[in-house]
Amino acid sequence: MLTIALPKGALLEDSIKLCQNIGLDFSAFLDSKNRQLQINDPENKACALLVRAHDVPVYVEYGQAHLGIVGYDVLREKNSQVAQLLDLKFGFCRMSVAVPENSKIERPESIPPHSIVASKFVRIAREYFKGIDVPVEIVPLYGSVELGPITGMSEAIVDLVSTGRTLRQNGLSEIRTLFESTARLVGHPLSYRLNQDDIATWVEKLSA
Amino acid sequence: MLTIALPKGALLEDSIKLCQNIGLDFSAFLDSKNRQLQINDPENKACALLVRAHDVPVYVEYGQAHLGIVGYDVLREKNSQVAQLLDLKFGFCRMSVAVPENSKIERPESIPPHSIVASKFVRIAREYFKGIDVPVEIVPLYGSVELGPITGMSEAIVDLVSTGRTLRQNGLSEIRTLFESTARLVGHPLSYRLNQDDIATWVEKLSA
Repeated sequence: MLTIALPKGALLEDSIKLCQNIGLDFSAFLDSKNRQLQINDPENKACALLVRAHDVPVYVEYGQAHLGIVGYDVLREKNSQVAQLLDLKFGFCRMSVAVPENSKIERPESIPPHSIVASKFVRIAREYFKGIDVPVEIVPLYGSVELGPITGMSEAIVDLVSTGRTLRQNGLSEIRTLFESTARLVGHPLSYRLNQDDIATWVEKLSA
Repeated sequence: MLTIALPKGALLEDSIKLCQNIGLDFSAFLDSKNRQLQINDPENKACALLVRAHDVPVYVEYGQAHLGIVGYDVLREKNSQVAQLLDLKFGFCRMSVAVPENSKIERPESIPPHSIVASKFVRIAREYFKGIDVPVEIVPLYGSVELGPITGMSEAIVDLVSTGRTLRQNGLSEIRTLFESTARLVGHPLSYRLNQDDIATWVEKLSA
């Protein structure tokens, strides 16, 4: 039986709609009273795991889920050994560098050396600044990254931006987009190659 | 003016009570409509930052908060350069190794080599198993760690246990307590030594 890992949070509703389109109903996960993290669809054709977005590539990499839905931002950050199968064209957002509006920094290249950059995406931030040869210290934060510049802890942030509302509300402005992100379908590479549990058919349905 | 970092989540209510005991009212953070992450107490004696528990030691280490309240579990995991000032004697819980109830493993030492152990506390788990010389692979998960053994991804977990209810509901049982944890008051080491903004007086009040 197919097992698919679905991400909690912003991508969940669209992920469940997508599954419904191919005849798999996991809408029970949207019930606020639901506490189950593992359910079968009513026709017992497939099983879904409800996990944190960052954990989706883990369950797929270790083969506990044949397929998973997760944002490209998380895939870039986690660098997991999973097969990227489809761009699902929802969950549009972008990874950006932002600084306080009143800052004199207009582009990442002008961030003074040894500045502090706060981010939930430590690997992405580190690789980006290494790539442009600007030596900064990346400080990992788990949430509310915008508080970094507000408190004066960091000169800049690297964060995921959707509408840009949170940035504006906190007096921050984007100075560079690193990449655009959308939801992706990922698969366990070996299961996919060996077409275990007929994954290929499911991927084909999802791509339609 | 004193700045104190308070942790979102399980320790927030007791942390705010503690502050109220010494005349600092940050109860605005408990208002479900509140969206501010930085507030002053009504008498403008101190400022509080509302951040994720894992970010408390970061704000203190980088000097944006003189003091912070955070669980010992997070301090152990983050290994931040902060001064531990007081055991606040609330937020009791323990860090434990757990395995499925039907597993034959009765103690961590009998976990077969090269098993997978899932945890949110990667550093703690890695150091523990290294200490007892059991070679396991630690797989980092962000949430719902109990799903690791349920899906068969991991043989064991290392996780924070409060009442033990989540473990029981998921058919897991504890086989070792690594340490007990409580909320701690931490400080910026240099600010504390230099007694900036009269931190020592605040710490004394809090210890009373």
